[in-house]
Amino acid sequence: MKKNAFYAQSGGVTSVINASGCGVIETARKNKNKIDKVYAGCNGILGALTEDMIDTSKESAKTISQLRYTPGGIFGSARFKLQDLKKNNAEYERLIKVFKKHNIGYFFYNGGGDSMDTAHKVSLISRKMNFPITCIGIPKTVDNDLPYTDTCPGFGSAAKYIAISTKEAGLDVASMAKTSTKVFILEVMGRHAGWLAAAGGLAKEEKKDAPQIILFPEIAFNQKKFLKAVNNSVKDIGFCVIVVSEGIKDSKGKFLAEMGTTDAFGHSQLGGAAINVADIVKSKLGYKYHYAIADYLQRSARHISSKTDVEQAYAVGKKAVELALQGKNSVMPTIVRKNDNPYKWTTSYVDLRKVANKERMMPRKFISRDGFQITASCRKYLAPLICGEDYPPYKNGLPISAKLKNIRVRRMLKEKFMIK
Amino acid sequence: MKKNAFYAQSGGVTSVINASGCGVIETARKNKNKIDKVYAGCNGILGALTEDMIDTSKESAKTISQLRYTPGGIFGSARFKLQDLKKNNAEYERLIKVFKKHNIGYFFYNGGGDSMDTAHKVSLISRKMNFPITCIGIPKTVDNDLPYTDTCPGFGSAAKYIAISTKEAGLDVASMAKTSTKVFILEVMGRHAGWLAAAGGLAKEEKKDAPQIILFPEIAFNQKKFLKAVNNSVKDIGFCVIVVSEGIKDSKGKFLAEMGTTDAFGHSQLGGAAINVADIVKSKLGYKYHYAIADYLQRSARHISSKTDVEQAYAVGKKAVELALQGKNSVMPTIVRKNDNPYKWTTSYVDLRKVANKERMMPRKFISRDGFQITASCRKYLAPLICGEDYPPYKNGLPISAKLKNIRVRRMLKEKFMIK
Repeated sequence: MKKNAFYAQSGGVTSVINASGCGVIETARKNKNKIDKVYAGCNGILGALTEDMIDTSKESAKTISQLRYTPGGIFGSARFKLQDLKKNNAEYERLIKVFKKHNIGYFFYNGGGDSMDTAHKVSLISRKMNFPITCIGIPKTVDNDLPYTDTCPGFGSAAKYIAISTKEAGLDVASMAKTSTKVFILEVMGRHAGWLAAAGGLAKEEKKDAPQIILFPEIAFNQKKFLKAVNNSVKDIGFCVIVVSEGIKDSKGKFLAEMGTTDAFGHSQLGGAAINVADIVKSKLGYKYHYAIADYLQRSARHISSKTDVEQAYAVGKKAVELALQGKNSVMPTIVRKNDNPYKWTTSYVDLRKVANKERMMPRKFISRDGFQITASCRKYLAPLICGEDYPPYKNGLPISAKLKNIRVRRMLKEKFMIK
Repeated sequence: MKKNAFYAQSGGVTSVINASGCGVIETARKNKNKIDKVYAGCNGILGALTEDMIDTSKESAKTISQLRYTPGGIFGSARFKLQDLKKNNAEYERLIKVFKKHNIGYFFYNGGGDSMDTAHKVSLISRKMNFPITCIGIPKTVDNDLPYTDTCPGFGSAAKYIAISTKEAGLDVASMAKTSTKVFILEVMGRHAGWLAAAGGLAKEEKKDAPQIILFPEIAFNQKKFLKAVNNSVKDIGFCVIVVSEGIKDSKGKFLAEMGTTDAFGHSQLGGAAINVADIVKSKLGYKYHYAIADYLQRSARHISSKTDVEQAYAVGKKAVELALQGKNSVMPTIVRKNDNPYKWTTSYVDLRKVANKERMMPRKFISRDGFQITASCRKYLAPLICGEDYPPYKNGLPISAKLKNIRVRRMLKEKFMIK
C-alpha cells in the first residue's frame, strides 16, 4: 500500500525554508505512484503530536509553486525539542502512533542540528515499534552551522542581505561622516559562529569599502584594540562601519548582550550587542553613531534572496524525497561544492547520526590575524553563496506570497496529546 | 558668458538622492550651450564654503548614469546649517564669493526644509551682492515632510522597504508564534511625522496580515490601550507585529527614546523606541519578543527602491535644471498627483519662500480612530508611492555602484574659510 509523507518545519525559519517544502511537495507529486499525500505539520512537530496536519494535496500546483518565493514557515514552525528518549519516550511513541494511524511512511524534517537529532531518533524508535518510517532530515539554518554540507539553505540569503545592507549603509555613512554620523554599527545574528558576521565582509570589495571592523563571536572582544581600530578608521577615512555578531563575548566568555532569558532549547536569547558597542564608542571616543539591528529582517528578506541559496533550498527538498524513494533512511541531503569560481555544486547525503547536534564553527583561518576582517580563503568560500538574484513577483509594490487553503487532515485518534 | 552650476546634497541622504543628482547633471549636459560645467560640493554646502568642489565634467557619461542606482550621497552630504543671516552673514558672503570666482550662476541645493531655506537666502543675498544666482531647491527627504509636493523623493523607497520588511517579518513571526516569539517590533524613522510608520501599514493587505499595531508620533503613547491591543492580538491570532516610529511620545510630549544628544540643527537624536516598547511588552505581558531597528538600512536600501520614487527623484533633478534655464529663481520642483489609481503624476514648482522651514504633518484622518492603523484614505495616498521595482545591476551578488574619479576644481581664492 502506498504511504503518505509527513513534512514539518522546525526552529527559526528562513527566507527559503518554504522553497525546500516546495521541493518536497513537488517531487512527491511527481512520484504519485510511490507517495500518496504529503501532510504538513501545523507548527512543526507539534502538528504531529497533536494530530494537527495540513493536507497539502488540497493545495493547487500554483500555490505550491509559490512556496518557492514565500518567506517564513508557511505551515508554522516550532522551537520544540522532544523530551530525552532515555527519560521519557511518550512523545516519540505518540509520534509513531499518529504516523501509523495516518499511514505515514516518510518523515521529512526541515531544520537545524536539533531537528536532525530528532529525525534520527524517530527513525530508531519507529523500527523498535515495528512501524519503520523513512526519516530524512532537510538542512535549514541561517547560522550555517551544520556539518558535512558546503552550506545550509537559508544562510546564503541572509548572507546576501547582510552584505548588501553593509554596502548600502556604508555608502550612506561615508556621505554623512564629515558633519554627522562617524560610526555605524550593524548587528547580525549568529549565536556561536560568525558566519553571518563574516558575510558582512563581502561588502568590502575595495580597501576603503565598509565594513572597517567585523566583531566575531570567535574572537574575544578586546575593548582597547577595538577602540584603537575605530579611531584609526575615523582618522584615516572619516568613518567606521562595524558589523557585530549578536554573540560576541568578552575574554571571560560573557556575552556583551546577555538578556538573561533562554529559549525552549536552553539557548540564551541574545540582543543588544550593537547597543553595547555603540555605548562604548560614544563614551570612550565621543563619536556620533547610528546602529541598526537586522534581527528577523535578515532571515526573512526573501525580496533579496540569493539565487544560489533558493536553488539549493529547493534541491535539498527534492533530494530528500529522492533519497527516501531510493530506500535511504536516517540521512540528510547535503550540498557538495565542486568548484569555487565559477561555483559548481551538486547534492549528496550524510548519515543523520553524524550530523546530529554537531556545530560547524568558522575556521580560525577565515578570520584575519587582527580579528577584524575575513581572509581571502573565507571570501573564496562565501562569495558564491550570495550570487544571483531570484526576485519574487510583485503586486502593488509588495512581493506576492502563497496563501494556503490550510485544509486539515481529519483527526483519527481518540486521545488528545497535551504538550507540556 | 556661459555660467557654471553648483550642485550640493544636504542633510540625511536617501537611496535616490543620487538619482536627482543624475537628473541635474545629465540635463545640464544636454544644455551645454547654456550651462558650462556642473561642480558638486564635496560634503554639501561645506564644499562651497571651503572651495572644495568636484568637477563632474571629468566623469564619464556611464559613471553619471550609474548615479541613478547608487545609494548614499556620492559627493558627500552635510548636516550643516548656515548661520542666521541677521546675526552673521559671513558664511553667505563667502558662498557668493566662491560662486563668483568660479563663475557659478546656478545653485542647485538637494535637501529638506532647512536646505530650501538656505537656497532661498542664497538667492536673496546674491542679488544684494550684485551677483545674482539662480537658486533652485531640489526636494529630498525620507521624512516626506515637505509641503506643496505630492511626496518627497527618498520617501517612497524607504516606505517600500518598510512595507516589505513588515510583510516579510510578519510571515516569519506568524510561523514562530506558537512556541516562540509572539511580539515583533520594527522601529522606523520619522522624527515628527508618522509617514514612514504609516508605510508599514501597507503590508496589511488582509485583516490578519501584519502590522497589528502602528505607533505614530502623532498619537500620544497610551500604555494601557497599547498593552490591551497587544494582548488582544496575541489572543486572537497568536502574535502581534508592531511598527513603531522613533518619534513616539507620551502624553506629556516626552520621547520614549530620548537619547539626550542633539544634531547640528538642534534636533534631538533619537533611537531606542523599539527597545522601550519591547521592555513594556515583556515586563507587563511576559511575551517573548524580537525587535529590529532599521535605521540607515531603510533609507539606503537602493536594492529595493520604489520605481516610482526613482523616477520622481530623477524628474525633480531634471526639472530643477529646466526651471533654471526658463529663468525661474528661488523655486523648488514639485510632484503633482493627477490620479490615484493608476497613479499619474507630473512635475511643477513652488516658491522656496513658501516651503522653507515648513513641515507637512500627517493628517489625522490618515490614522484610524483607535490610533493604531492607517485609514483607507492614507492607503490611497501611500500605495502608489511604493509601486514598481527598479533593480540595480549586480556583480558577484552585490549591487554595482558608481565610483567617481573625484577630480577637484582648482582652488582660486587665497583666503581659506574655517568652519566653526
